[in-house]
Amino acid sequence: MAKLCIGIDLGGTFIKFGLLDGQRNPGRTFPLPTPVDRGAEGVIEQMVQGAEKLIRDEGIPRDQVMGVGIGSPGPINLSDGIIISMPNIPGMDDCPLRDRVSAGLNLPAVLENDANAAAYGEYVCGAGGNSGDMVLLTLGTGIGSGIILDGKILHGSHEIGGELGHMIVAPGGELCGCGQRGCLERHSSATYMAQYAARLIREEGRPSSLREVLDRKGGIDAADVNAARRAGDALAVEVWDRAVHYLAVACVNICRIFDPERIVLAGGLTKAGDDLMDPLREHFRQMHWTLSAPKTELLLSSLGNDAGVIGAAGVAWSAFGGR
Amino acid sequence: MAKLCIGIDLGGTFIKFGLLDGQRNPGRTFPLPTPVDRGAEGVIEQMVQGAEKLIRDEGIPRDQVMGVGIGSPGPINLSDGIIISMPNIPGMDDCPLRDRVSAGLNLPAVLENDANAAAYGEYVCGAGGNSGDMVLLTLGTGIGSGIILDGKILHGSHEIGGELGHMIVAPGGELCGCGQRGCLERHSSATYMAQYAARLIREEGRPSSLREVLDRKGGIDAADVNAARRAGDALAVEVWDRAVHYLAVACVNICRIFDPERIVLAGGLTKAGDDLMDPLREHFRQMHWTLSAPKTELLLSSLGNDAGVIGAAGVAWSAFGGR
Repeated sequence: MAKLCIGIDLGGTFIKFGLLDGQRNPGRTFPLPTPVDRGAEGVIEQMVQGAEKLIRDEGIPRDQVMGVGIGSPGPINLSDGIIISMPNIPGMDDCPLRDRVSAGLNLPAVLENDANAAAYGEYVCGAGGNSGDMVLLTLGTGIGSGIILDGKILHGSHEIGGELGHMIVAPGGELCGCGQRGCLERHSSATYMAQYAARLIREEGRPSSLREVLDRKGGIDAADVNAARRAGDALAVEVWDRAVHYLAVACVNICRIFDPERIVLAGGLTKAGDDLMDPLREHFRQMHWTLSAPKTELLLSSLGNDAGVIGAAGVAWSAFGGR
Repeated sequence: MAKLCIGIDLGGTFIKFGLLDGQRNPGRTFPLPTPVDRGAEGVIEQMVQGAEKLIRDEGIPRDQVMGVGIGSPGPINLSDGIIISMPNIPGMDDCPLRDRVSAGLNLPAVLENDANAAAYGEYVCGAGGNSGDMVLLTLGTGIGSGIILDGKILHGSHEIGGELGHMIVAPGGELCGCGQRGCLERHSSATYMAQYAARLIREEGRPSSLREVLDRKGGIDAADVNAARRAGDALAVEVWDRAVHYLAVACVNICRIFDPERIVLAGGLTKAGDDLMDPLREHFRQMHWTLSAPKTELLLSSLGNDAGVIGAAGVAWSAFGGR
């Protein structure tokens, strides 16, 4: 039996478990709730027990497990495997999560940023096709990213690289939570796009069919904006187009910088499918230089929410002797 | 005697020659004129004769030369060592320059983009300090760039990556020669900064002490803008600040993307020294996120015009068995 690796994807609501076999094929994945109210100790216990359950349920001989990869929200000290801060789980700040999970399972472990893990998952088993350079953008509450060059995750000299959501695409634009103005995340994430629509309606009194949704639900999301856009609402058309425009600026810049084989899009906003991809490809084509035709493909994620846990297993595979 | 490598830097006016010894220390460099009027054949002959002269003058035993690195303006087919197009030298389009020079010298040769070669030179022997990731921006007529990650030049999946001068920093901004709007090059290169000042004076009738220079010389350059700025000319202050602002946007983005140890600035505009670096560092600091203090250093090139030829030798050193 070929050796395999376990992946654990730590999220604020669920912890996901999965594995990659020796041929780097992903197996079944399953979630357990994140016991946030039990703090860091409870969360670590859940991570260990979930991994033990996976080993047991799949009938894996323990000596066949090469190691465990953990994907976690940042900021992280990657070299030392330490969570720097995690506001939503009490006691997790400065936690040596990698070594705690490793000790609990008696297996080698590696810690990776969740967006990087998802990118690696898409690269190895998903839309990245396991060849050529790839950039992943996850369009959700914020915009996360992972950059795979020559099959390796780009971390930067101080482990704070690969933050494409905080590229400035609109100098002097809206103030981002990071302290910069005009970040991609602030103009094109699912959450901020919907917030922008709500602001135009509430603060600037712009007419829109979304006003009724806003009054009824107390808020709107990107799916509401897209539904209104499809029904011809002018404000929704404008807001959607603005978010896609800045996303296309980022994609053109990614081509000029990395010239990757593929840019893969994931996260909540990609539920819109072609309603996102068609206008994105059109903006991209129009904005792209004319020196050569676009060579980079823009693609939807193929692993969806499993990218993170599969990628975490892949990171372990790569760290502990695979390939 | 340790093995060494020869570098040739092909420019529109001069061809430069130099070498790196076995400890990767740069030796003497010298230029020969580029015989543009003799076309590709004459230029290749000059490249071969210059390298032979270097070998002869330095008294290098031929079997001690590992190979030759050639830095050339793009676009280039790097894998095949072929110049795709070079408008200012007749007959150079589609020329297999690498193999022609290699045959002429009976030595292995490698071809690299000139900005990448300069970046590699700064990395190995200059401001890059031969450790950590480094990004070079050359601020001249246009803006060239080279990106060194893990000691290697980033080329991209289709050999058109690392073109940071064509990052869009001002969406919807001025039309660049590449067909995009708002490229960094179009807003912050020495040439375009001066052109912008001239346009404000001539087309918009803006008052400035530069009008007299413009009338007298028929044009102005970045040094004129800086001189007027230092003398307190309001338009020159505005134009200089605008170019530096967009350059700072690019530097912040380079941090978010690559998180390099160093960003090194070279080219004509850097003759301004602290007049460029002081306001650049100030804009950079103000625009940079507040999640962590800036960790990337902004530095002036230390090799100046020799970076390209030394880097070309370094590329050969790396390609033909050094390290």
